[in-house]
Amino acid sequence: MNLVLLEPGEAAQSVVHLDARRSDHIRRVLRAGSGQQVRVGVIGGAIGRATVLVNDVGVELAALELDEQPPRALSVTLVLALPRPPMLRRILQHVSAMGVKHIVLIHTARVEKSYWSSSAMRGDAIRRECLLGLEQAVDTILPVIETKPHFLPFVEDELPSWRKHGSLLLAELVASRPCASQSGHTSLVIGPEGGFVAFERERLEVAGCQPVSLGQRVLRVETAVVAALARLSGP
Amino acid sequence: MNLVLLEPGEAAQSVVHLDARRSDHIRRVLRAGSGQQVRVGVIGGAIGRATVLVNDVGVELAALELDEQPPRALSVTLVLALPRPPMLRRILQHVSAMGVKHIVLIHTARVEKSYWSSSAMRGDAIRRECLLGLEQAVDTILPVIETKPHFLPFVEDELPSWRKHGSLLLAELVASRPCASQSGHTSLVIGPEGGFVAFERERLEVAGCQPVSLGQRVLRVETAVVAALARLSGP
Repeated sequence: MNLVLLEPGEAAQSVVHLDARRSDHIRRVLRAGSGQQVRVGVIGGAIGRATVLVNDVGVELAALELDEQPPRALSVTLVLALPRPPMLRRILQHVSAMGVKHIVLIHTARVEKSYWSSSAMRGDAIRRECLLGLEQAVDTILPVIETKPHFLPFVEDELPSWRKHGSLLLAELVASRPCASQSGHTSLVIGPEGGFVAFERERLEVAGCQPVSLGQRVLRVETAVVAALARLSGP
Repeated sequence: MNLVLLEPGEAAQSVVHLDARRSDHIRRVLRAGSGQQVRVGVIGGAIGRATVLVNDVGVELAALELDEQPPRALSVTLVLALPRPPMLRRILQHVSAMGVKHIVLIHTARVEKSYWSSSAMRGDAIRRECLLGLEQAVDTILPVIETKPHFLPFVEDELPSWRKHGSLLLAELVASRPCASQSGHTSLVIGPEGGFVAFERERLEVAGCQPVSLGQRVLRVETAVVAALARLSGP
């Protein structure tokens, strides 16, 4: 946690009483006592400093000065075949930290149906993982997460129009173009463990996705997502 | 597991009896029955195919044909402040899959001493995580792992000579040069959560490390390692 994130309702108060998780972090990791300043941010808003007050009821923050803007977003929409729940949690942290603000989770032939009803897919669970990524990366803007449990309507009716907004890339093992940074917005499609089936890959290419390669090594989805975003954010 | 890895001693036998983990994978994930071929590799050696035999005693492999070389290594030495054990395990998988063949784990001021005696540091534990990465990426060559529990002797006496072999880079938050692929071999130094302390950073720069940036977002070490390697392996 490199930033203590506050809900907008909390930040509107003159003194913010922190919950156990944030209190513990300030006391045990930052080892901050009364009078010291810590970096704070308001979810969806600005970043700045606040003064720590340690007292009988716990840890409070006062004298908020919020005068910095959050860092620039990574101009990438990540379209991702829904991974299994533990990997989804980690990926949400990675990509929130890397600055992605739009994530579309899609169903594909190799996604297990049960993943859609896992507790990791609940709104509060998704939000919690994204907040961990933002706290890490000193950012306040949550990504917007969309779910598309039906592959074809999404790929045939929605995806083609995205080409108007920038590049539309499909991460593949074998592709003549390497995955590299693009000018403008990029939408990047990453398949499930085991990859898209041939029919899906064909539909994605018909929708206008251009295959790009991360190299010939078969990476786990978690590794591939971070590697691809690092390439897209590169020089 | 995209490759069934065999110990050299196993591969020398005419019929290889597989342990439970590899047997389960062949039966439950690949759903391969007797007579089907699967991809196999010999640890440290070649890659090819073998024929599955399912019988009363379990799963066996026969008729090994090993005629492919493992994929090219990533010409990167990763010098990493020893992370906490669960993150070390995941990082070993990520970087083995990405093709790193030389990893140097170092002590720094912000590395907890207890990490050095954790069970994740045992040779068999490290080897197991690396094998998972190789099985994922269809590779057979284990990385060489060195440990340097003393920061200064390593950074002052060993690291400077590495410049002769190629680039020597230090991943930093703020650096004028972005992290990008280099010609020739690259040695990349990545600090602990919280970063190197000022004294360590100064010693690393005296040793010849050139700061490079992954962007201004503070990433967890696990995310930063994958992101940096993706940049170094890029076009």
